Amino acid sequence: MYSIAQYTDFFIRYLENQIIDKEPKNLYEPINYIMSLGGKRIRPVLTLLTTEIFGTDYKLALQAALAIEVFHNSSLVHDDIIDEDPIRRGKPTVHKKWNTNIAILAGDAMIIQTYQYLQDYEPNLAMALTKAVNKMALKVCEGQTWDVDFETRQDVTVSEYLKMIEYKTGALIATSMKIGAIIAQTSPENCNLIYDFGLNVGLAFQLQDDYLDLFGDTPTFGRRLCGDIISNKKTYLYFKALEIVSESEKQQLIKLYAVRLEDNAKKIETITKLFQKSGVPAATQESIKKYTFVASEILEKINIDEDKKTLLKDFAESLIGRKV
Amino acid sequence: MYSIAQYTDFFIRYLENQIIDKEPKNLYEPINYIMSLGGKRIRPVLTLLTTEIFGTDYKLALQAALAIEVFHNSSLVHDDIIDEDPIRRGKPTVHKKWNTNIAILAGDAMIIQTYQYLQDYEPNLAMALTKAVNKMALKVCEGQTWDVDFETRQDVTVSEYLKMIEYKTGALIATSMKIGAIIAQTSPENCNLIYDFGLNVGLAFQLQDDYLDLFGDTPTFGRRLCGDIISNKKTYLYFKALEIVSESEKQQLIKLYAVRLEDNAKKIETITKLFQKSGVPAATQESIKKYTFVASEILEKINIDEDKKTLLKDFAESLIGRKV
Repeated sequence: MYSIAQYTDFFIRYLENQIIDKEPKNLYEPINYIMSLGGKRIRPVLTLLTTEIFGTDYKLALQAALAIEVFHNSSLVHDDIIDEDPIRRGKPTVHKKWNTNIAILAGDAMIIQTYQYLQDYEPNLAMALTKAVNKMALKVCEGQTWDVDFETRQDVTVSEYLKMIEYKTGALIATSMKIGAIIAQTSPENCNLIYDFGLNVGLAFQLQDDYLDLFGDTPTFGRRLCGDIISNKKTYLYFKALEIVSESEKQQLIKLYAVRLEDNAKKIETITKLFQKSGVPAATQESIKKYTFVASEILEKINIDEDKKTLLKDFAESLIGRKV
Repeated sequence: MYSIAQYTDFFIRYLENQIIDKEPKNLYEPINYIMSLGGKRIRPVLTLLTTEIFGTDYKLALQAALAIEVFHNSSLVHDDIIDEDPIRRGKPTVHKKWNTNIAILAGDAMIIQTYQYLQDYEPNLAMALTKAVNKMALKVCEGQTWDVDFETRQDVTVSEYLKMIEYKTGALIATSMKIGAIIAQTSPENCNLIYDFGLNVGLAFQLQDDYLDLFGDTPTFGRRLCGDIISNKKTYLYFKALEIVSESEKQQLIKLYAVRLEDNAKKIETITKLFQKSGVPAATQESIKKYTFVASEILEKINIDEDKKTLLKDFAESLIGRKV
């Protein structure tokens, strides 16, 4: 086994070798651009890590890790169009640097590349991987559709929000691990356990992301602090608050999340106080704790050495920012 | 063997059984809508037909035919956003009836469904089909990118245009037939021959489509006659003309294809006369004749019964509108 930093390095070097000049430039330059923008490479690293945890050389998983990373980036390119985000990792998004049409086509080509990167595995293995990716990829589209729907719906429940992030975020993290397990040809039971571990880690990770936007000390992932509030992005904090607060506070929140302001200081302060008063931060941390606890319970059921469990725990912990 | 009308009917009945209500509605309603809009179902019928021509029951090809049709429709949904087309087959396009974000996500989900429809074949067969679809699908994206590029480039050659339609249109028709041949488990040589047959038919079909827009007697495929000229869509006619006409006529054409008018009668008349004077219609028909001739030459090399060749020829002829 190597360290997380080493797996990250192995993946980045592999990725760099894939980037070649191809025609038409207006299709492949945006793809190379988004793939080179960086990020933590969490998902492909989870694939490599999982393959090794189940006793197989990570090199066999590099191509599948690449498939997972290119799929993830395809969804970023299309989501950035949908969310009208101008900036991704401190740089212009593809639809801003080029245009929406190019971003649509680049995202489409990246979905197809996902499947192309899997095609050179031996057919039985390739199909097992392809089936796992199919299931996940459709969930990501469904999750993103719900996310868009929720922007205009007033009756979204916390459990609907949790299902949405399970589909949009959790399924991809879970599947990144599952395909690593499939490549290692471990038991179907282990494949399902590692999927469920990844799913719970993914949910905790997303809720922590929601939490840190407002209650973090420093900007996370290069985003502005309170970016969700400024852009009226309804996260767990918002839906949880709607469940807890009084009817008049609920109406106040709905109004606050419907306006766009030049100066957001007052809005952030009002919302922060409202959330704090009604116990939203504590409830969110409680929920994160629940998912991390479930993840650690699942990990115990997997028949692997303790040092490997520790590596997985440490990595999950570094993602979520709390003990798994 | 059945008739083309029967294969079409078999496919439509199969398709109708696939249309189910699924959540989220904002993802699956647009998919059901575009899949139910009709059209001639040329591509899936070619798949069924090819499977039977190589001696295998068309029923085995229904799922692959569905994959081909859903991929074709995914590209229509995204192309309609890109081309800002409000109408498809006489009905509002998905991005007009819903919105651009929903159309992006529906198209994405349909690309994924393409692969999902192939996953239940036996793994070796499923992977052979998936590889053929991967290669084709990436070509379609590349072709569409070139098509978009050509709108703003002034130096596009006829051979570049032909390569573009080979990727954007030809590859899909060719692959529809190839996957039918793969399912029938015929020789790799036959698979390649039927691909090349489909490619040449596809090119002739596209050029005829370009030709009929201006020189046809009646609207084709429910589109307005001269729609390409009204929307400044640069087709074979335009690029061929640029190669033939004088420098001053070339500048006139470039100008005419840069303006959008309320009343197009004068513009259509000027362009028609310019094309006719310089022999563009005859050159286009010559090119169509060449591709149909090559297609018929390829067909001769395939070792199948004469009555099957006749069925293929008749269908190709009905698509192109001239003898294969």
